[in-house]
Amino acid sequence: MLKATILLGTLKPEGGEAFSNTKVLSEILCDALAEGGVESEILRLTEYRIPPGTRSDMGVGDEWPAILAKLVRSDIIILATPIWWGGHSSLIQRVLERLDELNDEIVQTGKSEFLNKVGGMVITGAEDGAQNVIATLANFMVWNGLTLPPACSLSYLGGQKSKTAEGFKKELLELPYIVGMATTMAHNLAFMARLLKDHPLPVQEKNSQALTENVSVGENPSA
Amino acid sequence: MLKATILLGTLKPEGGEAFSNTKVLSEILCDALAEGGVESEILRLTEYRIPPGTRSDMGVGDEWPAILAKLVRSDIIILATPIWWGGHSSLIQRVLERLDELNDEIVQTGKSEFLNKVGGMVITGAEDGAQNVIATLANFMVWNGLTLPPACSLSYLGGQKSKTAEGFKKELLELPYIVGMATTMAHNLAFMARLLKDHPLPVQEKNSQALTENVSVGENPSA
Amino acid sequence: MLKATILLGTLKPEGGEAFSNTKVLSEILCDALAEGGVESEILRLTEYRIPPGTRSDMGVGDEWPAILAKLVRSDIIILATPIWWGGHSSLIQRVLERLDELNDEIVQTGKSEFLNKVGGMVITGAEDGAQNVIATLANFMVWNGLTLPPACSLSYLGGQKSKTAEGFKKELLELPYIVGMATTMAHNLAFMARLLKDHPLPVQEKNSQALTENVSVGENPSA
Amino acid sequence: MLKATILLGTLKPEGGEAFSNTKVLSEILCDALAEGGVESEILRLTEYRIPPGTRSDMGVGDEWPAILAKLVRSDIIILATPIWWGGHSSLIQRVLERLDELNDEIVQTGKSEFLNKVGGMVITGAEDGAQNVIATLANFMVWNGLTLPPACSLSYLGGQKSKTAEGFKKELLELPYIVGMATTMAHNLAFMARLLKDHPLPVQEKNSQALTENVSVGENPSA
Repeated sequence: MLKATILLGTLKPEGGEAFSNTKVLSEILCDALAEGGVESEILRLTEYRIPPGTRSDMGVGDEWPAILAKLVRSDIIILATPIWWGGHSSLIQRVLERLDELNDEIVQTGKSEFLNKVGGMVITGAEDGAQNVIATLANFMVWNGLTLPPACSLSYLGGQKSKTAEGFKKELLELPYIVGMATTMAHNLAFMARLLKDHPLPVQEKNSQALTENVSVGENPSA
Repeated sequence: MLKATILLGTLKPEGGEAFSNTKVLSEILCDALAEGGVESEILRLTEYRIPPGTRSDMGVGDEWPAILAKLVRSDIIILATPIWWGGHSSLIQRVLERLDELNDEIVQTGKSEFLNKVGGMVITGAEDGAQNVIATLANFMVWNGLTLPPACSLSYLGGQKSKTAEGFKKELLELPYIVGMATTMAHNLAFMARLLKDHPLPVQEKNSQALTENVSVGENPSA
Repeated sequence: MLKATILLGTLKPEGGEAFSNTKVLSEILCDALAEGGVESEILRLTEYRIPPGTRSDMGVGDEWPAILAKLVRSDIIILATPIWWGGHSSLIQRVLERLDELNDEIVQTGKSEFLNKVGGMVITGAEDGAQNVIATLANFMVWNGLTLPPACSLSYLGGQKSKTAEGFKKELLELPYIVGMATTMAHNLAFMARLLKDHPLPVQEKNSQALTENVSVGENPSA
Repeated sequence: MLKATILLGTLKPEGGEAFSNTKVLSEILCDALAEGGVESEILRLTEYRIPPGTRSDMGVGDEWPAILAKLVRSDIIILATPIWWGGHSSLIQRVLERLDELNDEIVQTGKSEFLNKVGGMVITGAEDGAQNVIATLANFMVWNGLTLPPACSLSYLGGQKSKTAEGFKKELLELPYIVGMATTMAHNLAFMARLLKDHPLPVQEKNSQALTENVSVGENPSA
């Protein structure tokens, strides 16, 4: 059975006064994935201690290694984020930073724990910026071994009438384009994940992903 | 045999005083593609009359329809561009705009002439910005039916010593990371294009790619 | 009297079947500027022959030099653009490219024809991306000698009911936030332009704007 | 005396094994500012507890309110960041998010604690992306009341030979373009801050900065 892990980058803590739009939208994707036989898990980043850094394990108290282990066991990796000033949230940016050691590995050896996995995004915003967020995350993903099928993103830009998560979910499910996007995205992710499981991309060559002569992609050792 | 078409967005006309870095880098990719049995053609956009607009055919004298026909017959589509102020060139931006009618079709019907094709980028710059260019073009591609395999970009950020295209090509081929990137990219593009030829993604649902309720992705009818 | 020049990057030709949202929004800004004693001129880029390139004058038939001369005589420079795939239009991107020779001058001498001018943006889109467009153009402007006051942008993201430019202008003027943005923007632009006319920034130092050791900002001589 | 506050977004903790490139570059800017009579303070964000959220005070244990108070007392606000995957660090993104309540105020009342302050950026990266980072931060700044003079950014993209901060500082100071950029930036920031202290921009109108009808810039209440 295929497995998807969704890293939820909402700024709101679990059990806080307001529900998370991004979580509700992620659940709609999970439902669509389930129909295609894909099991999903949502990890809400606010609930974990993930210190700043660029290594896979930053030492005592770091809860990132357990999350990373789940990603490695997944076939599909989804980054779910609200938009803040045209970009993804600080919690998702931290994920990108903490994946740097894994990226160094792919740069140096051509191997990656993420190769042959499939990537996608879930995005919410009151208005502006889904395309720029999709763009930034897509660039990150293709440089970290992931494959992106068409329509690999689900986004909702707008407000909500309901004050509960359940009510908001109903609102979203009444929008045909949300249901259509979720269905297509779920289908394409699962289709591509199965295809790559049956026909994996061969390991890439050493140094095959460095953008410049001296430095690796995103590497910034003394920043 | 697989076919790749490279749209070359250099600002320099063919036969001008200076050679195009982006063309030289594109040729290195073509060589790598050829080794994997993929036939390539480079179309230099400066040599065509492509008026501004958002339709597939803007009327008398428009040379875009012939280019579009070649893209539709290709298995792999590459956008090759220099970086100007952190973005792709005006000639590549025009390509995105002229593909809008095709995008409308995928939004409205779920069908696209580009579905099951594979996308990639070739980028040159004196310095800054490949990641942002890759990001923007990746977002465009996944919303237009293309699939992106990992490492689907080849970029060179730097100067050149040689004053001829041949000399510059030699310089680039002495950089192991350029050869590595070109090889990996060519391999992944061909692998994915063959995979999708044998196992095509099903046609997507109607309205499956609209980002918002009222408007389609990138649609901007009276702008 | 202060003078503002607006470069209008709509893809639609003058006199075409559909009016330009971006032109209508630009006119609202012009009206607001006029109330503050600023004279404005809108130059519609579709109506000029501006070949690709990076020099201020690309030779016979090039109509850019006349536009550039108007910019140099202006106190306020506005780039007005629809959003296409999260970015400004190909016509505005061409403007950035054609200003490269002027940028080389500021990099090499610290002097610029644009120093002590004030910049702003007018943006329209059916939905996504004003922040990213403002961002990209703001980066360009501060590296070309322009000063940006707060709230230096006017944008409208949405559709229109009216089929005429006059009708659409009425629709916009019924939106308090559009009137508010236009008024504030016009005020801040004029205030800052007058301030810099009375108290000009001194000429900057040689090499003062190079982003890296070997290459100048945006310079890409063989791209 | 003018006061500048630099928010340092390096991922490295104070006293860790590796020094911060971004801190060293920020110190070079501070030295240049001091020559122009501007007092500077660098606040290293890793050393403060700044929980996720969008309010100015997130409650017990939140150390952001004290930082915000310093920003409000400053004439010049600098965001200093390494580049990670083409964007600013998670610590700087958190700053943008935590300033959301202040942004709501400017949207609703036209008043801002940040109006008549001047903004700038310090950026380091092994390679790619300063222009995109400058762009994103510039967009944020002009929508939060700050004015941006030309050349308001100092960036270094490259490696270092030295293993100590002192050695790296020497390396940087041997690069004429770094000294030139720092001097010009410091001069322009101080010039503009003095100009706005003597000739403040009037308070802006209510609703003057909303990008769309229903929602304010960056507001995303249930994300």
